[in-house]
Amino acid sequence: MPRNVIVAQSGGPTPVINSSLRGVIETCKMFPETFGTVYGGWHGIEGVLKEELLDLSAQDEDEVALLRYTPSAGAIGTCRYKLKDGQDEDFERLIDVMKAHDVGYFFYNGGNDSMDTANKVSILANEQGLDLIAVGVPKTIDNDVGDSEFKLIDHTPGYGSVARYWMGIVQNANEENAGACPSDPVLVLQAMGRKIGYIPAAARLADPKREMPLQIYMAESGVSADEMCDNVSDQLKTDGRCIVVVSEGFDVGDLGETKDSFGHTQFSASKTTVAQQVVTMLNAKGLPVPGNARGQVPGTAQRATCMYASIVDLDEAYRVGQKAAMIAHDGENGWMSTILRDPGPIYNVRYDKVPLKDVANSERTFPAEWLSEDKIDVTDDFLAYAKPLIGEDWPSVPLINGRQRFTRFKPIFADKKMPEYELQGLRK
Amino acid sequence: MPRNVIVAQSGGPTPVINSSLRGVIETCKMFPETFGTVYGGWHGIEGVLKEELLDLSAQDEDEVALLRYTPSAGAIGTCRYKLKDGQDEDFERLIDVMKAHDVGYFFYNGGNDSMDTANKVSILANEQGLDLIAVGVPKTIDNDVGDSEFKLIDHTPGYGSVARYWMGIVQNANEENAGACPSDPVLVLQAMGRKIGYIPAAARLADPKREMPLQIYMAESGVSADEMCDNVSDQLKTDGRCIVVVSEGFDVGDLGETKDSFGHTQFSASKTTVAQQVVTMLNAKGLPVPGNARGQVPGTAQRATCMYASIVDLDEAYRVGQKAAMIAHDGENGWMSTILRDPGPIYNVRYDKVPLKDVANSERTFPAEWLSEDKIDVTDDFLAYAKPLIGEDWPSVPLINGRQRFTRFKPIFADKKMPEYELQGLRK
Repeated sequence: MPRNVIVAQSGGPTPVINSSLRGVIETCKMFPETFGTVYGGWHGIEGVLKEELLDLSAQDEDEVALLRYTPSAGAIGTCRYKLKDGQDEDFERLIDVMKAHDVGYFFYNGGNDSMDTANKVSILANEQGLDLIAVGVPKTIDNDVGDSEFKLIDHTPGYGSVARYWMGIVQNANEENAGACPSDPVLVLQAMGRKIGYIPAAARLADPKREMPLQIYMAESGVSADEMCDNVSDQLKTDGRCIVVVSEGFDVGDLGETKDSFGHTQFSASKTTVAQQVVTMLNAKGLPVPGNARGQVPGTAQRATCMYASIVDLDEAYRVGQKAAMIAHDGENGWMSTILRDPGPIYNVRYDKVPLKDVANSERTFPAEWLSEDKIDVTDDFLAYAKPLIGEDWPSVPLINGRQRFTRFKPIFADKKMPEYELQGLRK
Repeated sequence: MPRNVIVAQSGGPTPVINSSLRGVIETCKMFPETFGTVYGGWHGIEGVLKEELLDLSAQDEDEVALLRYTPSAGAIGTCRYKLKDGQDEDFERLIDVMKAHDVGYFFYNGGNDSMDTANKVSILANEQGLDLIAVGVPKTIDNDVGDSEFKLIDHTPGYGSVARYWMGIVQNANEENAGACPSDPVLVLQAMGRKIGYIPAAARLADPKREMPLQIYMAESGVSADEMCDNVSDQLKTDGRCIVVVSEGFDVGDLGETKDSFGHTQFSASKTTVAQQVVTMLNAKGLPVPGNARGQVPGTAQRATCMYASIVDLDEAYRVGQKAAMIAHDGENGWMSTILRDPGPIYNVRYDKVPLKDVANSERTFPAEWLSEDKIDVTDDFLAYAKPLIGEDWPSVPLINGRQRFTRFKPIFADKKMPEYELQGLRK
């Protein structure tokens, strides 16, 4: 007898997260003897807890296919709500909802934390007499899932597209800066990625021959704010202009006092950004050429712009979703589908599985040997790693009446069978 | 006898400014009996004053053609240096440089101010015995060139592409916001355009049927910060999320005190942005739903991203550059080339000329009747105006080795014939 499926997403989206969703949906539909109705958790685990289950089996298959060109998580939603240790009621509610809807398969798309959650759900379900197969689907723009030796995963779906975005905007920003340098000689661009440098590192893809006056400040660089000022000053004396890519996790040291008085904790919310702090610092110290430094903080466009999505990333995200479905189809519980790269000059990957608990207990860092000697660049080995991920071509994003056309699912939800529930972590 | 040509750009670039440059170059080359060598002022009028004249006639014609897909002003540069009244030495130097290089034609690409400068140069040249034809080429992303009745120009090259960018990012931002609303229900996007609302207004192109929870705050709206808070709160109660597009010129009133202590005067430089002030205000007042407001300030990407360029805009920018060359070819002095729209439902334009002095003395405002009754939207008449400017298709931006390929001119400069010169406006 087929059993039903829940797929849910967690955390920040990517330009390709919906491709993984599509991979799960379309592959489950290939095996009706195994998989019953495929439900999407409406806004991730929040929707599962609230018993808001979108019927994905009932959707038009062209709408499902269009997920390829639908960025972010608007189709079924995501959330930042976490199932933490000790939230026993949440975990029990989750199992109860799954039991009520005869769910035998749970796919959870997210980063390391989410793999931990998926693992816990699979263990708890089986303790509580629910025969549940939980499979993780990797996702993050930061490329911080798995381990530093690439044994658990070579790269995370989502990263290739963000890397391609950064290649693109730095190429275009270089034209802007070259054109406008008499008045605006320094352009500071703040990159996402928190404390891991894969995103700012991707700026180098814009200029592999190192012809631009480009400096990259990763959180891991260990460069001080004073050294940054000196570096920029030197570049200005040589080139008359400078493009600074700085990680949102870069430590600007005692510039902290320029932060505003509102203690919001989110990056890029209302507090002063790293880019602003750097711009303020550079202008306060004075540039050796006329004009000012200016800063920009590319926002969620980097994870929500499908024109910059990498075709390679779109394809891989789809297949890693497919692989998750195949792991479940094979009856294997407690795994994450993954992408492993063949050694050698020919870029080729295989889709495999690794234990959820290994992923949950791992931590990834940017390889120290890929940081250049001067700490404001990356090595050619990094470029060899990242270049195949961005692909060669633009994606064929469809336009109708001039506008992009995104997946629009019909609001067909599973009938509710459970009492209302207030999420444990949101109770006052 | 043919006489030489100088073409120079002024102010902020657009995704299509180089198409106008290409139009001038390629059209001048069609008439060798009229036009001699075409020089580009290297970084605009600064380059002319410094006698830095890039030989554009000597460049490979494919590099010139590639200007179509080269955004911003990196190819020949621009500047914010202005020739102001009273800077007599600068004006005289300009005439001297032109005389020294037998320049008979001067094309100046910019906004209203630049048309004023071009007009002054043409008058002064002829007073000083230089037979010079000066022609303006219109350009600005803000669509603030000309007059409010569209008699001088219907729309400025550059605006269509920025409008298309805003259509695109709001479409994509809506996916982001729809997906992430449990934690991030309010997304504030700050638009360029200073005090004129054409850019924020273009956000409506993303959603002509008004299905998104989208609110647009133009500088002209007259809406107070308190009203904004109420509007957003109402939207959240209805839809659970809200996208706020706010002009950089929107008056946030007494929120001014949240600005930092560095008194930099540039928008988007180091001071607190309007978007941040709005985000801070909304979060301080408290949202009626869980989560926080977050803000983004799309930066120069909107004028430097060729993937979002409008094909219509690219074509028109080229032809308005061509028209400028044809005005000069016809021996007419003191005009700006322009785009005028035929009345009726069929979008069609003609390229014409209007007196530089009329443009210089005009001021454009956003038509009050295009602002909706509730002041946070635009009317369908605005959409009818703007929709044809963005085109139907993506531009075919060429990629080589995965990267965009931009025009790279050889550094072939005219031999210097004049003594060094220090720009009057930059002297200490």
